[in-house]
Amino acid sequence: MDIKHKLTVELGARSYPIYIGTGLLGQETLLGPHIQGHSAMIVSNATIAPLYLDTVQQALDAGGTRHDSVILEDGEQFKTMASVESIIGALLQRRHDRRCTVIALGGGVVGDIAGFAASIYQRGVNFVQIPTTLLSQVDSSVGGKTGVNHPLGKNMIGAFYQPRCVIADIGTLGTLPARELSAGLAEVVKYGLIYDAEFFAWLEQNIDALKAGDTDLLAEAVLVSCRIKARVVELDERESGLRAILNLGHTFGHAIETAMGYGNWLHGEAVAAGMMMAIDLSMREGWIDENVRSRARALLHRAGLPVAPPTDMTTRQFLEVMAIDKKAVDGSIKLVLLRALGEAFVTADYDHDKLLQILPN
Amino acid sequence: MDIKHKLTVELGARSYPIYIGTGLLGQETLLGPHIQGHSAMIVSNATIAPLYLDTVQQALDAGGTRHDSVILEDGEQFKTMASVESIIGALLQRRHDRRCTVIALGGGVVGDIAGFAASIYQRGVNFVQIPTTLLSQVDSSVGGKTGVNHPLGKNMIGAFYQPRCVIADIGTLGTLPARELSAGLAEVVKYGLIYDAEFFAWLEQNIDALKAGDTDLLAEAVLVSCRIKARVVELDERESGLRAILNLGHTFGHAIETAMGYGNWLHGEAVAAGMMMAIDLSMREGWIDENVRSRARALLHRAGLPVAPPTDMTTRQFLEVMAIDKKAVDGSIKLVLLRALGEAFVTADYDHDKLLQILPN
Repeated sequence: MDIKHKLTVELGARSYPIYIGTGLLGQETLLGPHIQGHSAMIVSNATIAPLYLDTVQQALDAGGTRHDSVILEDGEQFKTMASVESIIGALLQRRHDRRCTVIALGGGVVGDIAGFAASIYQRGVNFVQIPTTLLSQVDSSVGGKTGVNHPLGKNMIGAFYQPRCVIADIGTLGTLPARELSAGLAEVVKYGLIYDAEFFAWLEQNIDALKAGDTDLLAEAVLVSCRIKARVVELDERESGLRAILNLGHTFGHAIETAMGYGNWLHGEAVAAGMMMAIDLSMREGWIDENVRSRARALLHRAGLPVAPPTDMTTRQFLEVMAIDKKAVDGSIKLVLLRALGEAFVTADYDHDKLLQILPN
Repeated sequence: MDIKHKLTVELGARSYPIYIGTGLLGQETLLGPHIQGHSAMIVSNATIAPLYLDTVQQALDAGGTRHDSVILEDGEQFKTMASVESIIGALLQRRHDRRCTVIALGGGVVGDIAGFAASIYQRGVNFVQIPTTLLSQVDSSVGGKTGVNHPLGKNMIGAFYQPRCVIADIGTLGTLPARELSAGLAEVVKYGLIYDAEFFAWLEQNIDALKAGDTDLLAEAVLVSCRIKARVVELDERESGLRAILNLGHTFGHAIETAMGYGNWLHGEAVAAGMMMAIDLSMREGWIDENVRSRARALLHRAGLPVAPPTDMTTRQFLEVMAIDKKAVDGSIKLVLLRALGEAFVTADYDHDKLLQILPN
């Protein structure tokens, strides 16, 4: 076991640690102290379970914790209430009481579903996150957002619910398809864009090694990303203001995901294209210059990501989805835009014509 | 409008007022300040909506709040995820954003479903309770417990979620069937039993007038009940200890409701029978004397309530349901018992044989 970094997300009584390193999955000494009661339910998916379920079960066995598992189908299209109900049904059938622990083993989809199930089972049970994708290590592991999609909108059902701890094992990224590693890098780049120009420059230097899977650099990127997200979330846990900057590119991105059907564009891919749209609008408003746009475009491109929306999407598709996006406040569309590299803000005060210019014809 | 009492439930940033009186339903000046944003979704049921929906809509119209409504079937058997999903579907279809307000207009079932829907829609929107039954005015309006049933257990899915305000209009009790008024009195008697011997004596004096619907006495009973519940909840919002005393009779009661099928015994009826079982066990343990038992039995009987479980229930049915009850901690069954009239406590330290003695043969 090699714990390279430990970070504490400071949320008062709901504070929790994030462990970042390699060889962490099977460690009873790491997992054990965060298991409440005597029973655990591991939630994973059909892709991840064959790789890592055994290892986590061994850690639970070593601690004498009774455990069961629910293995979901892999994919955003299964991020539904039906999946949540299958977990709750299994918890009840196997008689897990309110002192049990739900463990999410997988990517962001597994974490969102399992975390939401943990938040509503008997009005809330203990929850541990073991994210196995880069996206979930840098995004879902901080912030406590859990939930599922509704046919009429993404993430429309959910809860704010904090885990007891997060174990981010960089070793699991070795089995991640290149496309998913790139999707995770989209969120990593986002942290540089919204909050930290220096980190953005560090990414420009190291993007090729990160994409190639360098363990130490990935651990560093996860640490900095989680630290930035933690700082923002600590200041605004319930997203009444600042926290919304974490959604750079997400309003456009959600429109892309919805229009293309969940799961066809990866979340990170849609966010990358959406960030370029937000940057484009920020530039047209004169808040940033062409240089920022071309650096962002180059970095995202080197990371293996799309830098424009799907060619077959229409303006109407964007506007229809955006009007009901959670960031819409009483009808007006607020967007996250950049006023500089490393400095995002939320505003509804932009030129509507310029918004139409960046949307497809 | 006659506001007879106002009580504040003190929960820090989540504190809220309870208004108790008559003629409160149509008052924009009362409702308006607690509506967030510009849109509201009223959730009611097919029994209550024809009586009071118009009046509440008028209050919203007077405040210029856009509103829609979802009318559920009446009954505990509809306290399901399907009902929650119908509310969320309506919120999305009618494009209510995260600043909307969900208003529960009805009894405890409507409040539990609507409150849970409000807690998970877009990870939580504003919530207002207008309880129209005695049970919901004295029970659901304080404590923030929301949720639905699962085929394998009652209230197994839910959230702790506080309303922005509670409007308890005693006038609505005039249309309540006598059986439901009695069911509400079961919870009123409970507050005397667990926390306030003087209130219990007051109930002995006034039970006939309460049962006959005396408005001033009912307002007084609602006030004292809410005040006791608020005191307990303020000390232990998440039910880690003390709050469990509010469940006097509920472990046995849930077993009765589950065995008989939700909705056949009213919740309050099952609780009344369950409280007598808990009192019986407390007496067999020597903590209270026969006098307390006979006073409780007489009061519940005068209130029009059952004082024993259904004759066709078996010991096995009780034990099977109780083993998975939320109050079960790691397998041992904790119960709420009395150590005196007006003083309840939670314990697993009772004689198992005595428990078997009070269960059916």
